[in-house]
Amino acid sequence: MAEKILSAQDYFAIAEENKPQLETNVINEPKIVQLEADPAAFCGYRMIASRSTLKDLPKHDFNKGDKIIFDFGNHYVGHFGLDLVDHGNPMDSPLFLHFKFAEIPAELGFDNSKYEGMISSSWIQEEYLHIDQLPCKLELPRRYSFRYVEVEVMDTSSQWSVRLSNPHLKTQSAVSTQKVQTVPTDDKLLQKLDEVSVKTLRDCMQDVFEDGPKRDQRLWLGDLRLEALANNVTFKDYSLTKRCLYLFAGSITEDDRIPADVFTNGRIVPDTIFFFDYSLFFISVLNNYFHETADWQALDDLYPIAKRAINKALTFVNPQKILVAPDDWRVFVDWSQVIDKNTAGQAILIYALKQFIELAKIKSDPDLSGYERQADELSASAVKYLFDPQQQLFISGPKQEVNIASQVWMVLAHVLNDKDNEALMSVALKELFPIKGIVTPYMYHHIVQALFEANHAQEAIDLLKSYWGKMIELGADTFWEAFDPNDLEFSPYGSPIINSYCHAWSCTPTYLLHKYVLSEK
Amino acid sequence: MAEKILSAQDYFAIAEENKPQLETNVINEPKIVQLEADPAAFCGYRMIASRSTLKDLPKHDFNKGDKIIFDFGNHYVGHFGLDLVDHGNPMDSPLFLHFKFAEIPAELGFDNSKYEGMISSSWIQEEYLHIDQLPCKLELPRRYSFRYVEVEVMDTSSQWSVRLSNPHLKTQSAVSTQKVQTVPTDDKLLQKLDEVSVKTLRDCMQDVFEDGPKRDQRLWLGDLRLEALANNVTFKDYSLTKRCLYLFAGSITEDDRIPADVFTNGRIVPDTIFFFDYSLFFISVLNNYFHETADWQALDDLYPIAKRAINKALTFVNPQKILVAPDDWRVFVDWSQVIDKNTAGQAILIYALKQFIELAKIKSDPDLSGYERQADELSASAVKYLFDPQQQLFISGPKQEVNIASQVWMVLAHVLNDKDNEALMSVALKELFPIKGIVTPYMYHHIVQALFEANHAQEAIDLLKSYWGKMIELGADTFWEAFDPNDLEFSPYGSPIINSYCHAWSCTPTYLLHKYVLSEK
Repeated sequence: MAEKILSAQDYFAIAEENKPQLETNVINEPKIVQLEADPAAFCGYRMIASRSTLKDLPKHDFNKGDKIIFDFGNHYVGHFGLDLVDHGNPMDSPLFLHFKFAEIPAELGFDNSKYEGMISSSWIQEEYLHIDQLPCKLELPRRYSFRYVEVEVMDTSSQWSVRLSNPHLKTQSAVSTQKVQTVPTDDKLLQKLDEVSVKTLRDCMQDVFEDGPKRDQRLWLGDLRLEALANNVTFKDYSLTKRCLYLFAGSITEDDRIPADVFTNGRIVPDTIFFFDYSLFFISVLNNYFHETADWQALDDLYPIAKRAINKALTFVNPQKILVAPDDWRVFVDWSQVIDKNTAGQAILIYALKQFIELAKIKSDPDLSGYERQADELSASAVKYLFDPQQQLFISGPKQEVNIASQVWMVLAHVLNDKDNEALMSVALKELFPIKGIVTPYMYHHIVQALFEANHAQEAIDLLKSYWGKMIELGADTFWEAFDPNDLEFSPYGSPIINSYCHAWSCTPTYLLHKYVLSEK
Repeated sequence: MAEKILSAQDYFAIAEENKPQLETNVINEPKIVQLEADPAAFCGYRMIASRSTLKDLPKHDFNKGDKIIFDFGNHYVGHFGLDLVDHGNPMDSPLFLHFKFAEIPAELGFDNSKYEGMISSSWIQEEYLHIDQLPCKLELPRRYSFRYVEVEVMDTSSQWSVRLSNPHLKTQSAVSTQKVQTVPTDDKLLQKLDEVSVKTLRDCMQDVFEDGPKRDQRLWLGDLRLEALANNVTFKDYSLTKRCLYLFAGSITEDDRIPADVFTNGRIVPDTIFFFDYSLFFISVLNNYFHETADWQALDDLYPIAKRAINKALTFVNPQKILVAPDDWRVFVDWSQVIDKNTAGQAILIYALKQFIELAKIKSDPDLSGYERQADELSASAVKYLFDPQQQLFISGPKQEVNIASQVWMVLAHVLNDKDNEALMSVALKELFPIKGIVTPYMYHHIVQALFEANHAQEAIDLLKSYWGKMIELGADTFWEAFDPNDLEFSPYGSPIINSYCHAWSCTPTYLLHKYVLSEK
């Protein structure tokens, strides 16, 4: 049967057909709080209750330099508004306001003008605004990701004050939490991990599966893969997954690499960033999507893209059947810059190739046997060249480095049999725990999943509880982009205020609990 | 004939009927200039030509910290826009921009965050703006008063630049300059004074006669009086004068004082500021308006207000027929805080009363003779108690101060006969010139007019040329709110950057030239 070949425009058109109608909800009556410096608090600040109440707010006069902080009680994504009225003598000048939006208290403790991180300061959620006419029902036009809003009156005049009332936010998401089935467990912490995961995922589910609604607000393949898994056990919004698959399908390059991310803000623009492993994860997302939906039309449309992606990746396998990823197409694995990623890359190739083979079988691809042979060869070479029998661990790179990523991805790729996987992770637990140098929930997810897959459920749950649980202990309403339990203020960008504190790739505890804990009962 | 009594709402409704349709015009192709500190330049800064051209602009990459200044070649009031497009790798962050709008170069040399003047910093014309999607045809929503625009790129990201093109401004005014007849003179400086006056007036003629389109954007009675005079000889937009008269008529207090100004931005709100002389100037504007238009309906509507205003003012005349203005209703005369204003106040009362009498005659007011008697008494007392025969000048206040304002207003009120007026100004020219301590074109207008009225035309023209001409020499595109030739950086508000450099009450050279120079030919 001849496949119909779709153009990029065709893929994007189908993506647009699956664009979600965003659900909105108004949250009223935030608490009024005060920021307090506290060296013991996460990043040095915490919120304390204010003596001011929302009831008294409309009678309070704000003048030059006055500030107030509203706490909406949880993390949300949406639009902020409030009512403003002048009081005193007639308003003889514009009103000049400064707004700061924060996911965590510390963002309000920082002087934004001092920011010197690597990522653009334009992501800092703040606005300066002149208002020429009062009274005014202000609805700020931009979307923010926040729990706290600081309103600072830059100036009124000596003649009049401004009074505030009705602070509110209009949340938005592609999905509603109402239909979500929680993990049936009596363990309060596991319940909380589930709940916060779902909140994190929901706040990232917008026009696409975003990585972080504060920053970068962008569709990344690595994040999409984990979000889609969590979506399967929660919102089951498969059309959003479908939309994102088609966006990536239309973004494949002429030389068959799928970009790490696609910009969808206004225009659809495939990024020029390419990660070897992310390109392969297109296959993983498609395999997962088809198993959930049996959407044959999508499989027909997208399988050719998956095949181009796997074929491209396989061109970097050397005669010893070892992946040698090119310098300009590196394997991401984690933000860590210190670990060697060669062996993890080999494992991810096998992992994706096996998922591709599942699809090739379904599609009755005449090339199937060739892929199966290559999977066997890659696995055999992995054991032959990358497994160190003496250490009983996989090694990676020219310095024969032993790191957690290699073990974890080899387990997930099921290169060894189940018994050997269990043994491998037993050694890893002994030699490589407690984990050091891993700074993202993204990699922690894979470690936990590898423990579950290798029959170390208790250690998996312990790690879930200690890593994600630590974020909750530190006040997380949603899970974070980066978190190093050994360096609480770690930022991949040189400043914790630019970190995203609601980040898609951290939302997987709900998936892991549904898949491994619930299914074991 | 019984007068129909109108309510405030009735007056405001008629004012709204006379609301102008604003004329707009697009100004394209500003020059690109650079700011240069120059101690010899007005307020320390001047613009110099840039090597960059508008033609090359669309190919220029702007990154974090880059700035550009556009010079529209003249002063305008309106909305600024420009086209923005990203260049380089995909736009992976918002664009963060800072705009500064300036009437004079020095406004761009000032660090706005250091402003500590008395007037609200919210008047400083600047905006911070995040733009989430490019390309973008940006049209800033607020109106500014400016010749120069500085665009500063606060941030893009390391991945992309922003490129600018099509900087433009959409001017707005109630009137078009096309129909204006210029003063027929070969004197280049007088031609220039006329031209700049007309530009100043036009830029102040908006929804009402504003005092200054940069700041306060408000209808003041003192400014209105002079604007209406200049309007008579230029745009002849009498419906705008009518609108403003009705706005003040509807704003009269229950105790018969007309506020110094009315806010018309969104809501009509009479201010709580009252000046004794400004309240009387309602009569002056009405008298002037009726003489220009013979609008009997307006006279019928507004005469009762004028009568209430004069009656109220006359209650502050003591048994010696000397005005004793109350402490809470002071006579403004000028921003100067050092001159005594008692005698000027007496003169202004006589000046306004005489204009009221003209209207009372037209209206055949049965109370006419009483007003005529009071005018005579006030004049007689002025000569008796306030004129010092030894100095041949009017004195003012308990310290018998001799100042220019007293002489000028007594001349304008024609308390003395023409010969004595001429003699008075001869003495004044000898004793009180060169002028010191007068800081506004508003008071300079009255000095020049008094010289004309007292048969000192040459000295009047000399003063016109030296005072307003000095502003032109310093680079004025429009005339200024405050100007002390002896202290170029003088500001009534503690900072020259908050001064208005296009201010209604400075627009009268065109009126003075039309009335006194043209009519003499």
